[in-house]
Amino acid sequence: MKNFKYDIPTKVHFGKGKISVLGKEVSALGKSVLFVYGGSSIKKNGIYDQVMKQLDSMNVIELSGVEPNPKIESARKGAQLCRENNIDVVLAVGGGSVIDCSKLIAAAASYEGDAWDLVLDTSKIGNVLPIVSVLTLSATGSEMDGFAVISNMETNDKLGMGSYKLKPTVSILDPEYTYTVSAYQTAAGTADIMSHILESYFHKEDGAYIQDRFAESLLKTCIKYGIMAIEEPENYEARANLMWASSLAINGLISYGTDEGWTVHPMEHELSAYYDITHGVGLALLTPHWMEYVLSEDTVDKFVEYGVNVWNIDSSLEKYSIAKEAIEKTADYFRKMGIPMTLHEVGIGEENLEIMAENASKRGAKYGYVSLSKEDVLKIYKSAL
Amino acid sequence: MKNFKYDIPTKVHFGKGKISVLGKEVSALGKSVLFVYGGSSIKKNGIYDQVMKQLDSMNVIELSGVEPNPKIESARKGAQLCRENNIDVVLAVGGGSVIDCSKLIAAAASYEGDAWDLVLDTSKIGNVLPIVSVLTLSATGSEMDGFAVISNMETNDKLGMGSYKLKPTVSILDPEYTYTVSAYQTAAGTADIMSHILESYFHKEDGAYIQDRFAESLLKTCIKYGIMAIEEPENYEARANLMWASSLAINGLISYGTDEGWTVHPMEHELSAYYDITHGVGLALLTPHWMEYVLSEDTVDKFVEYGVNVWNIDSSLEKYSIAKEAIEKTADYFRKMGIPMTLHEVGIGEENLEIMAENASKRGAKYGYVSLSKEDVLKIYKSAL
Repeated sequence: MKNFKYDIPTKVHFGKGKISVLGKEVSALGKSVLFVYGGSSIKKNGIYDQVMKQLDSMNVIELSGVEPNPKIESARKGAQLCRENNIDVVLAVGGGSVIDCSKLIAAAASYEGDAWDLVLDTSKIGNVLPIVSVLTLSATGSEMDGFAVISNMETNDKLGMGSYKLKPTVSILDPEYTYTVSAYQTAAGTADIMSHILESYFHKEDGAYIQDRFAESLLKTCIKYGIMAIEEPENYEARANLMWASSLAINGLISYGTDEGWTVHPMEHELSAYYDITHGVGLALLTPHWMEYVLSEDTVDKFVEYGVNVWNIDSSLEKYSIAKEAIEKTADYFRKMGIPMTLHEVGIGEENLEIMAENASKRGAKYGYVSLSKEDVLKIYKSAL
Repeated sequence: MKNFKYDIPTKVHFGKGKISVLGKEVSALGKSVLFVYGGSSIKKNGIYDQVMKQLDSMNVIELSGVEPNPKIESARKGAQLCRENNIDVVLAVGGGSVIDCSKLIAAAASYEGDAWDLVLDTSKIGNVLPIVSVLTLSATGSEMDGFAVISNMETNDKLGMGSYKLKPTVSILDPEYTYTVSAYQTAAGTADIMSHILESYFHKEDGAYIQDRFAESLLKTCIKYGIMAIEEPENYEARANLMWASSLAINGLISYGTDEGWTVHPMEHELSAYYDITHGVGLALLTPHWMEYVLSEDTVDKFVEYGVNVWNIDSSLEKYSIAKEAIEKTADYFRKMGIPMTLHEVGIGEENLEIMAENASKRGAKYGYVSLSKEDVLKIYKSAL
């Protein structure tokens, strides 16, 4: 096990009706709130009204219209609203996109230059306003981590940024708030959670036994409940386990002490930077191809562990058989959830593969579990066409 | 899954050489430190010198001699030292007993009455000095939770107390610091960790799937590494996994969302209140008898889950066979670690069983996973003779 520093300051209120603590938590942090959200869905399902009721004694400024794969323009607008209105707290109500955008807003509010500077260089982050989130989609884990991913469509950049300062102060996780999430978004969200776990789980550090068993526990959670939530959208147990898995998958718990090297995320970020596809879908369709590509004498034992412990494959089988079956089962599960599993199906052709492969390699895949050059990434993209 | 509030503020520095951050962490909290420890072992193994080197620019007052099953007198003495010396931070260097005692010291320092009042009624806890711990024994998990257990030998009371305010601010966990822990104490510590996990794991809340899989992960960790650490005291991987398991077993992670009802702990506290035996040993020897006693049509499914997922017992066997084999394997494992598994072996006879059973029931066992009356506890004690 590697040395690590465990530091997860986010307080989580989890369960039915937990919106009831929002007013108290937000007012403890200040008087003026920037209420950030996406489209009209929170108005339709009543969450907007519940939030506003909690904030009735506060000065509330709204920023709506934050898009999936949140754009730098939204963050710029939010930061300006913070400055103009002396905002004390940024309240994100939505999924990972809204929370990610809110994180950059909270950091950019007190930054004199352009918000994009902070994405490019997190060392420029100074004071960050406290961030409170109310989660409506189980997927990115942004509600309990210090990461944000922001897109700049002018430059076709979709970049991740990470800082301790970006961790939310408080997050409210009510599984019932995800009852109205569509089957497609539930599938994509579950795939996103699974990808986060897999990126941590496939590491080369021996002896991080607890972390590995925890990662397997979370993967089994997604496998058990992903399909269940799709088939029974109002199954509380399924929604609750997926929601808590989304936070624990990426808050550090399963990666502390390992030497994780994320690979599929940088490959996917290029897809959604160029084509604005759903992040979880991009991750799901690339994952089996990435697995096949990196399977080798060096990595096969990890795949065996994955196959036996997560997919219950007979451990007495030959090791490559186990590995390949595990990869197949992974792809089958994504397919069963209804995720399109080829690039063509999501409208991506060969036109940008070269430049995307180059970016993906230098922006992370080069430092992954198995280091991937531009050529490696290109082969993976092509196998996924 | 039940509603819960997740709030684990303790920052953990985990790994080899992490004592190097102690000076910085402590000095961020104040200038005057009460340095609390037990016997002379930290002087023999060099930890005392390493700690003092980190504190060289600070005003350090020492309180040594804190005993296993820490006594109220030590806490009183510590609280007085805090008042006399305007202490800002309480630094606990040791195992759970030292940390527990330090927690009460930190709370009693600003309390005008007797420290024992706070054990009896935690609502009287006001300001608590920040607590920093350096762990030297993997067992109680006190380094990352808000609990303390204090003994009053005059009244034969050994009572637990819990408050959010008692959670350490910072804990330093260096697995190498446990290399010199004896085989016996390693076994007792591992049994203590396993008991914490089992107390959480045996609950009646359906649908806390993540928590159950995490609990099983931690149990498997103890089973894999307990014996290994006994046989190879300087096996870093074993010591590291046990140390991290000790914190995660009781910091809330596996109990949030469940309806845990601890039973074996209140039964054991009476044993060590009357006979001052090693806590982990008392837990280990009672556990299989408790399991046998509460096994019934109501609970058998949980025992099956335990047997199959933790002990890899064939799931196609008849359910009571699985349950009984799981209980046997639990007892065998404790025995294999060298733990005395009868009350007689640790010097306990029938003389106080009645009064101990009465106390155990009213102080917790009545509210346990299966509610236990005085008569129930008495039967369990007798079966353990």
